[in-house]
Order: sequence, then C-alpha cells, then structure tokens
Amino acid sequence: MADEDKNLIEILEENNPIDMSKYISYVHAPQCGAIATFSGTTRDTFEGKTVLELRYEAYVPMAIRCIKSICSSARSSWNLHSIAVAHCLGPVPVGETSVFIAISAVHRDDALDACKFLIDEIKASVPIWKKEIYADGEVWKENSEFLGRRMELGKGMQDEGCGKKIGVETHKRKGCCGMKVKMEDVAADSK
Amino acid sequence: MADEDKNLIEILEENNPIDMSKYISYVHAPQCGAIATFSGTTRDTFEGKTVLELRYEAYVPMAIRCIKSICSSARSSWNLHSIAVAHCLGPVPVGETSVFIAISAVHRDDALDACKFLIDEIKASVPIWKKEIYADGEVWKENSEFLGRRMELGKGMQDEGCGKKIGVETHKRKGCCGMKVKMEDVAADSK
Repeated sequence: MADEDKNLIEILEENNPIDMSKYISYVHAPQCGAIATFSGTTRDTFEGKTVLELRYEAYVPMAIRCIKSICSSARSSWNLHSIAVAHCLGPVPVGETSVFIAISAVHRDDALDACKFLIDEIKASVPIWKKEIYADGEVWKENSEFLGRRMELGKGMQDEGCGKKIGVETHKRKGCCGMKVKMEDVAADSK
Repeated sequence: MADEDKNLIEILEENNPIDMSKYISYVHAPQCGAIATFSGTTRDTFEGKTVLELRYEAYVPMAIRCIKSICSSARSSWNLHSIAVAHCLGPVPVGETSVFIAISAVHRDDALDACKFLIDEIKASVPIWKKEIYADGEVWKENSEFLGRRMELGKGMQDEGCGKKIGVETHKRKGCCGMKVKMEDVAADSK
C-alpha cells in the first residue's frame, strides 16, 4: 500500500462533530504497538476573556494539500503506519474538538513524536482561520504560530511552511492566507 | 481540587477491555485546549516471531502507587489538568489495548510532553510483567526499559524509578520486581 493510502485527511463542514473513534479505527492495525492522538478543543477563556465558541474557515483544497504535505514530511522523519487528521469548520463550542490527529506506528516514539510534529505544523502552516467569539465581541485571529511562520518567510527564511515545499510556494505565490486575515482583521476592528 | 482528585488510575482485571472514551471523558474539561492520548496495543510480531497475545500480571497496590508517583512527577514538570491511566491484566490479544493514557491541559505542549513522559516511565518503572505468547511457545518478559532502569539502580544511580521517590525506595527495600521476574524467567526457561 502506498503512503498516500494510509493517510485520511478530512476537513469537516459545519455541524459535523469529530468522531474520534472513526479515526482511531482507521489507524488501528495489528502490526502496530502504538497509537498516539491529539485533540484540540475550544477552551472557555483566552487571555482572560470568556470564550463562547470558535469558528473556523478554510480554503479546503489548499488546507488538504498542506496537511498531506505535512504527513509526507512526518513519514520521512518517523516510521509511521497510518495517519488520520480531521479539522472542523464552522462553530466549535467550548469543550468540543476542532482538530483531531491519530497516528499509529510499530513503536511508540514514532507515533508520539510525529503526533506532536503534525499538530505544530498544522497550526503553523495550514490555511485555516479562526474567529474567536467572546462574551463581549468577536475577532478573526491568526494562530500566533502561523503569524510567526509568515514573519519568518517574510524575512526570507525559506523553511518549512506546509511541509517544507508547498507552503513556501503557496505563501509566496498567492499570499491568500495573509491577505484574507488582514482583510478580516480590519472588518473585525471596525465593529 | 487537589492534584490527587484529577488522576484516575485503573489496573483492570482480566477480561475488562479498556474503554478509551471513559478516560477521555474523565480528562475532558472546558478550561483545557488539549487532550493527548497514548494507546499501547499488542502487535502481531516481536523480533520476527508471531505473537498470539500478551498476558500481564502486576502487584496491583504497588503498580498503582508507582503510577500515582509518576503522575506527581509529571505535574511537577508540566501544567496539567487531568490524567487518566488504565492498564489491563490478563490476556491482551493482538490489536487490543493493554495500556491507555489520556492527559488534558490548557496548552498542547504540556499534554503531549507529559503523555510521552508517562508512558516511558510506566514502561521503565512500574511492576507490571508481560508474558509473550508466541505461535511456538511463551516467555515472561521484562520490558527492556525496565531492565535498563534496574541495571542503572544496581550501579548506584539513584534516579527516577517510580517517579523519582517511591521507586528507588521500593526497588532497594523490597526488590519485588526483580525477584519476581527472575523466578518467572527461570520457570519459563525450564519449560
């Protein structure tokens, strides 16, 4: 089976909660001794403010392409069997999962280290944007890591973005993430 | 709530499969943005031999005491909300989970790093023994990490075992792990 066949990447449209058991079953295999998972959930406060929910938007084809590329990068560093990644779009209330990763491997270090790499890279380089809905207002937010990565790119550091290849091309050629967030930020600020 | 209240440690008697959703629900909390989990599963081969199942035995009160101590060590290094650890005793067929860890935290690095620490420490220092049932025989096995840790202790390196305190005392005072495994090893070898 090709690497590609062992990756399941899903960007879920609004009102489709993440079914963790589906992704855990997908990565489950008798030859594996380890499954590592990560769930990112909406927490009730951010920098002292009460959060009601988060809302996510993405340019889906590019988000999937980026995540695929990150999976390939992970496979080049660790010996992995299967990878499943799911990300919700639309509103994600407090306590619910917005992103879920499950990775299986023969040995646990591979699964655990790759799981951490995947979520770090997804946060830093995949074009998925987040609106924070507070008790007293709302704002489109870039993940601070995403912003950090973009600033590095702006300084000419040709690293990593979207699994080391696609991201750099994407950010440089189309700049959709940066433009989108800036426009939304202006709109939010003017409210 | 005291730290103690946020830890759930269960050593499950024979024929009680691990219900992951129970432990994930236990660690779930609205103030957390991250849940990391690890499942250790029986894999179908070990060093080229076909494995049918693993069987686990433990001295339960000491295993629980050790795991509690490891949880305390983790809490002293990372900012964690809840920790759940479950370990099966008895037979665990290929593909099934023998150990499951779920950890929640406000931030993902804490949850992910602590999850790795916990499984590494559990493998290295908790008195749970494993019998490997192969297609052509069976053998009681110490985890190689457990053995490594014991050898370090034997050399007078006063580190880590059972979360840095209890382990050292336990191993030095009672030495039950070492004695038990050695006796079982002899029995297995003589078959």
